[in-house]
Amino acid sequence: MTDTSANAPASARERTRSRENTRARLLDAAAQVFAEVGLGEASVEAICERAGFTRGAFYSNFESKDEMFLELAKHVAQDRVAAVRARIDEINGGQGLHIDPEDTAAIVDILDAIGNDRLSGLLMQEITIHAMRDREFAAAYVAQEREMVGEVVQLIEEIRTTKCLSLRVPSHDAARMILAVWSDVSARAAIAGVSDEELSELRGAEVGRIVQLLLLDAS
Amino acid sequence: MTDTSANAPASARERTRSRENTRARLLDAAAQVFAEVGLGEASVEAICERAGFTRGAFYSNFESKDEMFLELAKHVAQDRVAAVRARIDEINGGQGLHIDPEDTAAIVDILDAIGNDRLSGLLMQEITIHAMRDREFAAAYVAQEREMVGEVVQLIEEIRTTKCLSLRVPSHDAARMILAVWSDVSARAAIAGVSDEELSELRGAEVGRIVQLLLLDAS
Repeated sequence: MTDTSANAPASARERTRSRENTRARLLDAAAQVFAEVGLGEASVEAICERAGFTRGAFYSNFESKDEMFLELAKHVAQDRVAAVRARIDEINGGQGLHIDPEDTAAIVDILDAIGNDRLSGLLMQEITIHAMRDREFAAAYVAQEREMVGEVVQLIEEIRTTKCLSLRVPSHDAARMILAVWSDVSARAAIAGVSDEELSELRGAEVGRIVQLLLLDAS
Repeated sequence: MTDTSANAPASARERTRSRENTRARLLDAAAQVFAEVGLGEASVEAICERAGFTRGAFYSNFESKDEMFLELAKHVAQDRVAAVRARIDEINGGQGLHIDPEDTAAIVDILDAIGNDRLSGLLMQEITIHAMRDREFAAAYVAQEREMVGEVVQLIEEIRTTKCLSLRVPSHDAARMILAVWSDVSARAAIAGVSDEELSELRGAEVGRIVQLLLLDAS
């Protein structure tokens, strides 16, 4: 296939770029507003004001607030999976996994790529609760969740095989448990109002504990 | 102290009872509406309509929707803790705990007293996300959460001592992990749209798995 955009007049290409930029800025603003007040209370006006655009800009990019929320959730999901994958590759350096599983901090470090601040935790909770309420939205959520668990399973499998370790449950169940503890400590830390730094520490301790539990004790 | 209400004229006592009945019906209706559409989108009108009362009845009982949500969250918390306590006492029969810890179904059965249907799961998620957003609300949430964890710790301690079992982590950490897995599987089941019966089965399998992991293998 030929790249038609390369043959387009400069002005058309600029319009496309500008349009993409507008969408991205609207989505960034929406992520903040949805996290802060929730889908129900978030207004198109508040999102536009935060992004510095008019309602016209909004409606030339999105059909509705709900359609935008679905689009945002897809972006968040893709970003989370890509961030975890990138962090694993970075540590791997293309030469097989170098993580010492006793050093659970490395595993927490990888999971922190999912999003380690209060706002992204809030947005994830908002996405989860909307998936519990909305059938159509749930289907998209389940697909991304499966991908995320798949990434963690792959990470566990790599550690398991390169380090010749045994797990006390199948990798898939281990991944689920690690992610459950990760979500739980993130929510509790946000509620307790701890700093992002303290959150990382707390998460390290609790995720480390479940990882240790999952490893078959050789002694 | 003397019971002044017993000395009050019949009509005054009836008014008190009727007022309590109105509050209870409004809170029940609110629980459904908050679970279904969330705090942000729930309107006082929708709550009144569901309960079959006027806005006047609402405002003679509650200052605002937010004040009502806080009140509801307190009720939910008290009910959850009381339900778990009652289920433990029921199994205990006042003669010490008879649960076989290998029979993790009994532990799941006790935790199911927290609320085992889709609507109560949704309401808990809504309460959690609101606690993440609101400082004042968070304080009330943390207090009830502590009480809930305390109940589960006590349950674990009873099983541990009467059955002479060893846990691989302190009881408090074990309680946290069990509750984290419990919440996670409840949310995922609601998203997957499984029936309440299937949810109980799924929860049994996943909570059972973490309980087994927590027990020190005697072999």
